[in-house]
Amino acid sequence: MNYRFAGRMGRVPESFLAELFRVSAVPGVISFAGGLPGSAYIDVEGIREAAREVFADEGRTALQYTTTDGYLPLREFIAGRYRQRLGLPATAEEIQIVNGSQQCLDLVAKIFLDPGDAVGMERPGYLGAIEAFSLYEPVFHSVPLDENGPDLEAFGSLIRDHAPKFFYGIPNSQNPSGRTYSQERRRGIAEILDETETVFYEDDAFGELFFDGQPRLPVKRYLPDQTVISGSFSKIVAPGMRIGWIYAPAPVLREFNVAKQAADLHSNFLCQVILHRYLATHDLDAHVRRVSAVYGRHCRLMCDLLDDLMPPGATHTNPEGGMFMTAALPSGVSSMDVFREGVREGVAVLPGTPFYVNGGGEDTIRLNFSAAGEEEITEGMHRLARVVRRLV
Amino acid sequence: MNYRFAGRMGRVPESFLAELFRVSAVPGVISFAGGLPGSAYIDVEGIREAAREVFADEGRTALQYTTTDGYLPLREFIAGRYRQRLGLPATAEEIQIVNGSQQCLDLVAKIFLDPGDAVGMERPGYLGAIEAFSLYEPVFHSVPLDENGPDLEAFGSLIRDHAPKFFYGIPNSQNPSGRTYSQERRRGIAEILDETETVFYEDDAFGELFFDGQPRLPVKRYLPDQTVISGSFSKIVAPGMRIGWIYAPAPVLREFNVAKQAADLHSNFLCQVILHRYLATHDLDAHVRRVSAVYGRHCRLMCDLLDDLMPPGATHTNPEGGMFMTAALPSGVSSMDVFREGVREGVAVLPGTPFYVNGGGEDTIRLNFSAAGEEEITEGMHRLARVVRRLV
Repeated sequence: MNYRFAGRMGRVPESFLAELFRVSAVPGVISFAGGLPGSAYIDVEGIREAAREVFADEGRTALQYTTTDGYLPLREFIAGRYRQRLGLPATAEEIQIVNGSQQCLDLVAKIFLDPGDAVGMERPGYLGAIEAFSLYEPVFHSVPLDENGPDLEAFGSLIRDHAPKFFYGIPNSQNPSGRTYSQERRRGIAEILDETETVFYEDDAFGELFFDGQPRLPVKRYLPDQTVISGSFSKIVAPGMRIGWIYAPAPVLREFNVAKQAADLHSNFLCQVILHRYLATHDLDAHVRRVSAVYGRHCRLMCDLLDDLMPPGATHTNPEGGMFMTAALPSGVSSMDVFREGVREGVAVLPGTPFYVNGGGEDTIRLNFSAAGEEEITEGMHRLARVVRRLV
Repeated sequence: MNYRFAGRMGRVPESFLAELFRVSAVPGVISFAGGLPGSAYIDVEGIREAAREVFADEGRTALQYTTTDGYLPLREFIAGRYRQRLGLPATAEEIQIVNGSQQCLDLVAKIFLDPGDAVGMERPGYLGAIEAFSLYEPVFHSVPLDENGPDLEAFGSLIRDHAPKFFYGIPNSQNPSGRTYSQERRRGIAEILDETETVFYEDDAFGELFFDGQPRLPVKRYLPDQTVISGSFSKIVAPGMRIGWIYAPAPVLREFNVAKQAADLHSNFLCQVILHRYLATHDLDAHVRRVSAVYGRHCRLMCDLLDDLMPPGATHTNPEGGMFMTAALPSGVSSMDVFREGVREGVAVLPGTPFYVNGGGEDTIRLNFSAAGEEEITEGMHRLARVVRRLV
């Protein structure tokens, strides 16, 4: 049988993830390659209690079909949190529930992109976004990211020259770099986009996880009608429920809703109701503070060890939050070699290349600091440094 | 702000569903328009007990990320059921978990269809499939459905003349007609497709719900490498968990897995684990027998009332299973008028037109017999008959 697959399937970059999952499952390998929140910081007891209450009070309703936009009390909670934390005038009508913010990547691309359309991204950019967008066959253009965010001159040229349907960015603790846009850059981006037809797609998976507990104002604050924000409970409550959301202007949400209905009717309702019950009966702020503090300790430990143990020429970013940092290897050391040798030494890292849409990143690796504990981080960094020193 | 949406968004047929949901929520309206399984026949107690056990034994794992293909024990259960019930040599490696079988519609279209590709469907065909496929901008061709399945001559011509990437059909208790393909037609379809490059996409949402409890052999039995089957727990356990699956040959599943990962990484893991626990500790066969028997009674009651109450010229299909039937109205009566007048009379039905990709169905309505109880069916059929008699 000759299966005639669509042309788009040839556009997906080869994924490391399958290999990664295999590697991460090898006993004894310490993995900094994945993107898991720390399992120890999932409030299993709290969610269990919420589930118990939901089954007792409204199990029959929660197990039936529901509307595509999602559970209204959950959308009200999310909107209320935007008003409270960030001063954005959000309402439940502007929020729609999805299967983790990954589904936003698929559906935003679906409603905006015809083959050949331009898409703007950060360089490096989020691997999962590149994969999701690729299936809609766009032309990628990217803007280098420095410690304050996208280079504004390059950003302006990109928008002017290519008029992308949207620019996708992660202003808070970017994946893979861990970098956070300064407020000046956010304002600058909004000024450049104002009066263009390019939408700013603001992925905010990590905005709750600043180590200092202080929220940063989103680009949407400066460009409300032109920005869609995606958010997720995966990093602050639990990823296994697959619940995220989009917060978007009404005309975008209408199309998004059509695409969501065609994609899977609605997100799992049982988990939406359980999650809402959990949020209504537990202190999310306190939980998020606790998790952020732990990740902050992990991050500092990892930075210190990289400084102490890596050979000269190695550098790393200094995240203010989130779950990832990027390390640059000494000149001439290849990240693919570090990946392969690392696995033999019992440590897994993610090579930087899949984060570059048009080549690059051969000398960088992404390091996750949320999944492993402090002892594992210490041992893993020693293993990594041994590998890199050997390859210099 | 001028939002530049993709061309595909203009291809989605206007949906009745939003209007339907509004109508169905009007107090006092008896709805035969939706597609809900009967809430009374969801085993809330059983699922609650399964959830309790999962939280006690493996809550932390079930709340974390997992692999894209889904929970292995659940996939093994599904494969085992194919071996046992239908004699298909299924293995867990051929099964992938999705968000209800609606997600298969989106992802199968995504991996196969370039704009302008031909897709074959039944006439009438499933509305949700038409919506999902439309976003990939195919050209639809359809084959009339009689009481034994697709007309084989028309089917043969369609395959020969248009070489569709796939033909989408629901051989068991089709939505909207309630019709079931005869075994002869299934074999005939397989013979016609054999040695072509057209995949048979066999949507089997209702195969467990035959009133006589007897499974029918799927087309996949006759054409294993060329058929993908989708299935769902929505109709036999609970829709709110949004768990379905695809059962497909390895080369198809590889592409499907890429698309699923890009779409939402994986389906909600907590519900996958709870559902598996439920299936492992409860008698699904007994539950399905109970539900099918109830739906069978509902269906017979509805058929009898249509026969007794509707004016001359009205006809209806005679389902052997599932949740839907189609009624044809007396000559000159428009289904849109029946819809509008019906709501005023307190009964909601679904006009047939959205089930026709190239026009037609103006004199048909789809009736659901799973959601309403027997008293509601009786009262609702009286209301419907009054409306139709008035419109003759």
